[in-house]
Amino acid sequence: MRHPVREISESGTPALLQRFRHVRAASEAICAPLSVEDQVIQSMPDVSPPKWHLAHVSWFFEAFLLKPFLPGYRTPEPLYDHLFNSYYETHGTPFTRARRGLISRPGVAEVIAFRAHVDRAMEELLGAPPEQHAEEIARRVELGLQHEQQHQELLFMDIKHILAQNPLHPAYRTDLAPPPTTPAAPLRWHEYAGGLHQIGHDGQGFAFDCEMPRHREFLGDFRLASRPVSNGDYLGFIIDGGYARSELWLSDGWNEVRQHGWHAPLYWLWEDDEWYELTLGGLRPLDLNAPVCHLSFYEADAYANWAGARLPTEAEWEVAAAKLPLQGNFVDSDHLQPVAAADDPHAPQQMFGDVWEWTGSAYRPYPRFQPLPGSLGEYNGKFMSGQMVLRGGCCATPRDHIRCTYRNFFYPAMRWQFAGLRLAKEA
Amino acid sequence: MRHPVREISESGTPALLQRFRHVRAASEAICAPLSVEDQVIQSMPDVSPPKWHLAHVSWFFEAFLLKPFLPGYRTPEPLYDHLFNSYYETHGTPFTRARRGLISRPGVAEVIAFRAHVDRAMEELLGAPPEQHAEEIARRVELGLQHEQQHQELLFMDIKHILAQNPLHPAYRTDLAPPPTTPAAPLRWHEYAGGLHQIGHDGQGFAFDCEMPRHREFLGDFRLASRPVSNGDYLGFIIDGGYARSELWLSDGWNEVRQHGWHAPLYWLWEDDEWYELTLGGLRPLDLNAPVCHLSFYEADAYANWAGARLPTEAEWEVAAAKLPLQGNFVDSDHLQPVAAADDPHAPQQMFGDVWEWTGSAYRPYPRFQPLPGSLGEYNGKFMSGQMVLRGGCCATPRDHIRCTYRNFFYPAMRWQFAGLRLAKEA
Amino acid sequence: MRHPVREISESGTPALLQRFRHVRAASEAICAPLSVEDQVIQSMPDVSPPKWHLAHVSWFFEAFLLKPFLPGYRTPEPLYDHLFNSYYETHGTPFTRARRGLISRPGVAEVIAFRAHVDRAMEELLGAPPEQHAEEIARRVELGLQHEQQHQELLFMDIKHILAQNPLHPAYRTDLAPPPTTPAAPLRWHEYAGGLHQIGHDGQGFAFDCEMPRHREFLGDFRLASRPVSNGDYLGFIIDGGYARSELWLSDGWNEVRQHGWHAPLYWLWEDDEWYELTLGGLRPLDLNAPVCHLSFYEADAYANWAGARLPTEAEWEVAAAKLPLQGNFVDSDHLQPVAAADDPHAPQQMFGDVWEWTGSAYRPYPRFQPLPGSLGEYNGKFMSGQMVLRGGCCATPRDHIRCTYRNFFYPAMRWQFAGLRLAKEA
Amino acid sequence: MRHPVREISESGTPALLQRFRHVRAASEAICAPLSVEDQVIQSMPDVSPPKWHLAHVSWFFEAFLLKPFLPGYRTPEPLYDHLFNSYYETHGTPFTRARRGLISRPGVAEVIAFRAHVDRAMEELLGAPPEQHAEEIARRVELGLQHEQQHQELLFMDIKHILAQNPLHPAYRTDLAPPPTTPAAPLRWHEYAGGLHQIGHDGQGFAFDCEMPRHREFLGDFRLASRPVSNGDYLGFIIDGGYARSELWLSDGWNEVRQHGWHAPLYWLWEDDEWYELTLGGLRPLDLNAPVCHLSFYEADAYANWAGARLPTEAEWEVAAAKLPLQGNFVDSDHLQPVAAADDPHAPQQMFGDVWEWTGSAYRPYPRFQPLPGSLGEYNGKFMSGQMVLRGGCCATPRDHIRCTYRNFFYPAMRWQFAGLRLAKEA
Repeated sequence: MRHPVREISESGTPALLQRFRHVRAASEAICAPLSVEDQVIQSMPDVSPPKWHLAHVSWFFEAFLLKPFLPGYRTPEPLYDHLFNSYYETHGTPFTRARRGLISRPGVAEVIAFRAHVDRAMEELLGAPPEQHAEEIARRVELGLQHEQQHQELLFMDIKHILAQNPLHPAYRTDLAPPPTTPAAPLRWHEYAGGLHQIGHDGQGFAFDCEMPRHREFLGDFRLASRPVSNGDYLGFIIDGGYARSELWLSDGWNEVRQHGWHAPLYWLWEDDEWYELTLGGLRPLDLNAPVCHLSFYEADAYANWAGARLPTEAEWEVAAAKLPLQGNFVDSDHLQPVAAADDPHAPQQMFGDVWEWTGSAYRPYPRFQPLPGSLGEYNGKFMSGQMVLRGGCCATPRDHIRCTYRNFFYPAMRWQFAGLRLAKEA
Repeated sequence: MRHPVREISESGTPALLQRFRHVRAASEAICAPLSVEDQVIQSMPDVSPPKWHLAHVSWFFEAFLLKPFLPGYRTPEPLYDHLFNSYYETHGTPFTRARRGLISRPGVAEVIAFRAHVDRAMEELLGAPPEQHAEEIARRVELGLQHEQQHQELLFMDIKHILAQNPLHPAYRTDLAPPPTTPAAPLRWHEYAGGLHQIGHDGQGFAFDCEMPRHREFLGDFRLASRPVSNGDYLGFIIDGGYARSELWLSDGWNEVRQHGWHAPLYWLWEDDEWYELTLGGLRPLDLNAPVCHLSFYEADAYANWAGARLPTEAEWEVAAAKLPLQGNFVDSDHLQPVAAADDPHAPQQMFGDVWEWTGSAYRPYPRFQPLPGSLGEYNGKFMSGQMVLRGGCCATPRDHIRCTYRNFFYPAMRWQFAGLRLAKEA
Repeated sequence: MRHPVREISESGTPALLQRFRHVRAASEAICAPLSVEDQVIQSMPDVSPPKWHLAHVSWFFEAFLLKPFLPGYRTPEPLYDHLFNSYYETHGTPFTRARRGLISRPGVAEVIAFRAHVDRAMEELLGAPPEQHAEEIARRVELGLQHEQQHQELLFMDIKHILAQNPLHPAYRTDLAPPPTTPAAPLRWHEYAGGLHQIGHDGQGFAFDCEMPRHREFLGDFRLASRPVSNGDYLGFIIDGGYARSELWLSDGWNEVRQHGWHAPLYWLWEDDEWYELTLGGLRPLDLNAPVCHLSFYEADAYANWAGARLPTEAEWEVAAAKLPLQGNFVDSDHLQPVAAADDPHAPQQMFGDVWEWTGSAYRPYPRFQPLPGSLGEYNGKFMSGQMVLRGGCCATPRDHIRCTYRNFFYPAMRWQFAGLRLAKEA
Repeated sequence: MRHPVREISESGTPALLQRFRHVRAASEAICAPLSVEDQVIQSMPDVSPPKWHLAHVSWFFEAFLLKPFLPGYRTPEPLYDHLFNSYYETHGTPFTRARRGLISRPGVAEVIAFRAHVDRAMEELLGAPPEQHAEEIARRVELGLQHEQQHQELLFMDIKHILAQNPLHPAYRTDLAPPPTTPAAPLRWHEYAGGLHQIGHDGQGFAFDCEMPRHREFLGDFRLASRPVSNGDYLGFIIDGGYARSELWLSDGWNEVRQHGWHAPLYWLWEDDEWYELTLGGLRPLDLNAPVCHLSFYEADAYANWAGARLPTEAEWEVAAAKLPLQGNFVDSDHLQPVAAADDPHAPQQMFGDVWEWTGSAYRPYPRFQPLPGSLGEYNGKFMSGQMVLRGGCCATPRDHIRCTYRNFFYPAMRWQFAGLRLAKEA
C-alpha cells in the first residue's frame, strides 16, 4: 500500500476516500447479522456493546478530524464526545468503560444515523481538504481507518463473548465458510541463525507508533515450530494433567487457574462425553487439527513448558515472518475461526492469520520510541506495562490491516481474543 | 373484588379471563414506549431487563398452570424454564440473577411471541378448566396476575433506574399527566387509641400468604402525621447537615452514607445551583410540595430522628389505614411520580398511593404464618430476614393491586423503589 | 443486685468500688493464659485483638468518667482516645475497626499499665465523687462495668476464633472444668397460655436502655422445647441433607451456605471419619449430648423448619424465662463450652447459660424506647437494624451480667458467638 | 568472594560455616529492637510478620538441607513444613500467604528455639557433610544464606510498613547513623557508547539463576544521570501537578493514582504545612537532598516523562555499573534510609545502595535461562511475568549480597520496597 499522503498530493483524495468508504461499510456489515438486542450488551468490562463500537469509531473521526479541520461542523449531540471517548484523558472525560452496557440510548438506529452524519462530513472534508492541513488530515484518516479495523476485530471478539453468555448457544452466522478437512500437519522445526537483526517498521506505509523505530537486536540461534499448536496437541496437555500441575505455570498464572477454575481454553465445553467449542458459527465438535485458540498467555506459557519448549520472542518471530508472504486465514476467508492448514516442509505455516501468537516479550517501547503528538499519543504508548506482545493476526483480522512488524498486546490473563501459540526452541 | 374462585363456581371463567387479558395487556403497554435497547439492560443486580420481566411473568403461568394443568402444552423453548425462573430453587436451577442483562436472546419480539403463546394456552385452559382442578387453577391464576402486577411496578422502577444511568437524561414518556400545583398541606397530627387491635388479612378476597393470618397486636396510643414528608421538608434536613450528622443515623445507615457518598435522595441532581429530580417524565425542577421519594429506610429513619419523631410500626399504619378509602395517586393517575395532595383536617391524606411508606417493622412472619404449599411457598416466606416493611402502595402501583393489609418489603439500603415516609409519634 | 446509685446515697462507694475491682480483675484473668502474640491478632473484622479489648474498656472509663468528672486527670497518651474509641462517632473519630490488628503498640505491657493508670484514677474518683455528679457517676460506672463484662464474653469469643485459625489447634486452657457425662435429656414441650403479657425491664436494678421500657405484648398460646437443640439432634439435620436443601432456608441464608460452603456449625471438623469440635480447651470429639453451638440465625431457622417447628419470639422466650431461676452454665462454671444438663419434666432447662438462643425477633426498639443521652446513646440504639435478638446468656457470660430481659443481638450470618437454639411451636 | 564449594573441597567447612553463623545472627539482630507484638503483624498481604520471616528462612534449611541430607534429623513440629513454606507448591501445600498474620503460635520464643534447633543441626551437617553430596550441600547452603539475606531486607521493608500503620508513629530504632548534611549534587549526564554488550552473570561466585546466562545485547548510545532523582527533584514534579496530569502516566498507573489517591511517595506525610517522611528512625522532616524513595514503577515512569527523560533498561544500567566499585549506602552503613552523596564529575554516584533503581525492563528470562532443578526451580522463574526489574541494592541490602548483575523485581504498583529511580536519555 502506498502512503495515502502521497496519493493525496499527487492525485487528490479518491484512493483514500474509496478506502474510507470500504472500511466504514465493513463495520456495518459485521453488525448486520446481529439483533438490536445483541448490540447493547457488555458481557464483561473488557467487552463493549457493538453499537458502542460503531459509535466510537465515528467519534474518532469527529474528534480528531471534523472538529479540528472541517469549519462549521456540528455534532448531532455534544454529549457523544463524552459517551464515545474510549480512553483519551487529555481530550476530555471518557464515560466509565465498565458502564458502556448501561446506556440504551442512542440506540442502534441513532448510532447508524450518527455514522451517516460523520460519513457525510468526512466526504466533504476529504473532497476538499484545506491545503495547509492536507498531510495531517491524510495521516489521521489513515489512522482512523486502521483504528476502525482494529475495532472490527474487537467486534468479532466481543460478539463471540456476548453470545457465549447465553445457554441457548446462539450462532452469530450460520453461513460461514466451512472449515477444510485438512489433516493435522506434522510438527517440524525451522532453524534460524542468530546475530544482529533489524526489527520494527521502517516508516514506508502505515504503521502504528509502537512498531517504530526500526532498530537492531541481537538474537541467538533459534528454532521455530512449523505450525501453531493444535487443539489435538493441547488436548494432550489437558489429559496429562496440565491444569493441575503447578510446576508448569507462572505463579500469577497458577493463581488464575485456581481462582477461575480454568481447565480448558475459553469456549471449550465438555458435554455428553465430548469436547465442543463455541464458535461464531455456533457450537461445534472440537476440531483437533485446527490451531488451539482462546488461550491466555499463562496457558500458552504452561503448554510450552510442558512441551519442553518456550515461546518465541517478538524479535525471533519477526525475523522469521519477515521472509514469508503475508497470507493466511484472515477475516476475508470468512471462516471466523482458526482452521487446519496444509503442510509445507520448507517454511513455517500459518504465521499470519488463524490465531494471534503469544510471544515471550513484554509490550514495552522500542528504543527511541516516540508516541504521536497530542491526544493521539494516548493511542498506544500508555498501555506499555503489564501486557504481552502477540504477533501475526488472526481469522478475525482484516487482511490489509496486518504487517510482520505489527505488535498486538493483551494482559496475560485475557482469553477472549483469538490467541494461540507457536513453540520455539534454542537451536 | 370478589374472589375469582367463587366467580368460577357460579358463572364460569369470564370474569377471571377478562381480568387475565386486562393485566397481561397492561404489562405490554408499560413497555410500549421503550426502545428495544432499553429492554435489554440490567443497570444493577436488583434491576431486571424489561424484556426479562415480560418473559418471567409468562413463565410463571407456564410453570405453575400450563405444564401442570393443560394436557399437551408445549413450551416454545425448554431452556426458558431455566432463563426465566427468578428464584424458585425447588422448581429447578434459576439462571443467575446478576447475569440477566447479558442475555440478548430471546429478543423483544421473541419474548412477545412467547407471551402470545402462553396467552393462547391460558385462554384454552381457562375456557375449559378441568373440573377437579378448577379451584386450584383459579387460585393460581389470581396469584399469577397479582404477581404480574407486582412486576408492572418493578418495570417502572427498573425503567427509571435504567434511563437514569444515561447522561443524556432520556424521558420514559413525555405525555405524563402533569403534577397538580397544589400547595403543600400543613403537617397535622392524628391521634389513635392504643389497645388490642387486629391486623392482617381475613381471607376474604385475594391476599398474599404473608398478610395472614389476621391476629391481635397490642399497641400504645400513637399519633400519625397527616401527610408524607415532602421534598421541602426533606430539604430542611439536608440543609441542616442531616447527611453529615452521625448521631441521626443507624450504624449500618451511616456506613452506607459514607461508602456511597449519599447526600440527597436517589435521582436528585444539583445542577446550576438548583435541585432537579429525574422522573419518568424526564428531568424536572424539584417539586417542594410533593412527597419525598426514593429514600432508603436509613434515610427515612434518620429524617424521623431529626424531626423528633419516629416511623410508625406496620400495625399502627394498618390500624390507621383500615378506616380510610382506598384511593390515591396510583399508576391509574398516570403521574408516575408522587404529587402534592389537598389538605383535609379530618384524616391522614395519601396513605395510599404516591409513595410506599417505610415502617419501623422488620419483615417477619405473622404469628402462625403458613407459606403456600410447594414451590409457590418460595413466593414470600424465604425473604423474611433483613428487610423492612413498607405500606400503602405508590404512584406506580395498580389501584386494584393494593390493600390496607398489603406488606411490601425491601432491604433497608435500597432506594430505587418509590419509597418515602410518614412520621409517627407517641400520643 | 441493688442499684449502685442507692448504695452510694446510703452507704458511700465501697460496694461499687469492690465490684469495680472485681470486674476489672476478671478481664485481666481472662487474658492471663494468653501469650503476648495471641493478644495482637484480629482474625476477622468482627474480632478485636485481646489487648485492644483490655485497652478499650479502660478507655470507656477514661472517656466517660475520668475526663468529665476527675479534675486534673491526665491521659498517658492523647491518641488513645482515637485508638481505643470503638464506635462513638459523636465522641471523636474512631480508629478504623478492621485495622485494630495492625497496631502493635501500645503493647500488652503498656496496655496493662494504661489499665493500672485508669484504675488508680477511678479509685480516686470513686473514693470521693463530687456530690453533684455522684448519681451520674454511679450510673456510668455501672454501665462501664456491664460494658466490660460484655467485652469479657467477647474476649472468649475472639480468643476462640483467633486460635481456631491455627492448624496447630492450640488450646486456650487445658485445665477447664471437664464436661459432665450427662446423657441427652428427652425433648419435651412446655405449654404457655397466650394473652397480654408484659415484657421488658421495669427499671429496678441495672438494665441496658434497649431492654426498656416494660410494655405489653399480645401472644398466642405457644409451646417451648424443654432443652436446646443438641449436637446429636443437629447431626440428624446434617445427615438428612439439611445444608443441601434450599427449601429449608431463608433466601439470604441459602446464599451464605453456597458462598461460604457451610456444611456444619463453625468449629466442627471432620477428621479421620469422625466429627470433632474446636473448643477453648482444644480439639475434642463432638459431644452429642451438649447443646449445638456456633450456629448462625440462618442455620437455626433452617433447623427449626426441618424439625417442623420454629424459633420462639423474644417475648415468648421472656415470658417463659421470667418464671425460672437465673442459673446455668455460665463463665463461673469454667466449662467455657456448652454441656449437657440433667432432665427435669417440670420446666424448661438451660434457658440461661450454655448457648445464647436465637429468637425469631428482629432487634428493634421497644415502644417508647429512649436511648441514653449524649454519646452513650450510641451504645445500643444505633444497632437496631439488620440484627436478630438472642436470649439467655451462654457459657462465656458472667453469671451476674445476665437477666431474663437481656437482649443480645447479632447479624443473622454471624457464627462466632456461642449461639444455639431452642424450638417453639404453636400450642 | 570465592565460591564456597571450592573452599569446602580445599579446606573443609569453616569458611561456609562462619558465613552461616554470621548471616543467621544478622537476622536475629534485625528483630532485636522489635517488641514481641511487632513481630506478629501482617500489615498487608505482601508483608509477612517478622517472626514468620525468622521461621521461614530456617524452614528453608530444614526442607532443602536437613531433611534430605542429615540422617535422623527430626523437626520440632511437622506442621512447620506447612506453616513456613512460602510458595513452593511442588514441596507441599503452603499456608495461605494472606493469613500469616493470623497465626500467633509458634510465638517469638518458639521461633527462636526453632532457629536454634535448625542451627544445631546445620552445624552438625556442615561439620561432616556426606562426601557424595558435599557440593550440592555447599551450593544449597549458599543459596539458603542468600535467601536469608533477601529476607533481611524484606524484614526492614516489612517492619517499616508495620510501624507505619500506627498513628503513634513509633520508631524502629532511635540510634541510627544520622544522615550526612551533604548538599544535593548537581545532575550531570554520563555518556555510554552503544553496540554489542555482554550482560548477565558469568558463573564465577554465587548468582541467582535468573542472572544467567551471560549473553549479548545490542544497545544504542545512551546517557545516564549522575545520581538518583532526589526528594527535592521529586517535589518539583508534585508541585507541577504531576499526580494530576494523566498524560504523564501509563494507563495502569493512572488507575492506581485515582483508585488509591496517590499524591506523594509512600511514607510522605504533610503535616502543619511541611512535608515529613516516616523512616525506620521515626518521623523526620523530608530531606530534600536524599534520593526519593518508596516510589512505584508507575511514579518513576511518570517522573521520567515529566523530566523529558526515561528509565534506563536493565542492560544499560548493568553496562554502566559494571565499571564501578561496589560501594554505597548499604545496611552496613546503618542509616536504613537513603542519604545524599558527595558529587563526583567523573562517574555516576550511588549506583549501588541507597535506593533500588527501577528500570524500564520487564522481568523476563534471559535467553537460554535454566531454572534450578526440583522445587528450588520455583525460586525465581515462576515470577517472570508482570514484574519490572530494579537494580543496585538499597540502604537495607547487605553489602555482600549485591552484584552488578543482580536482578530484583517487583510489581509495578508496589511501593513499600526502598525504590527510587535514575534518569536515562538517548545520547
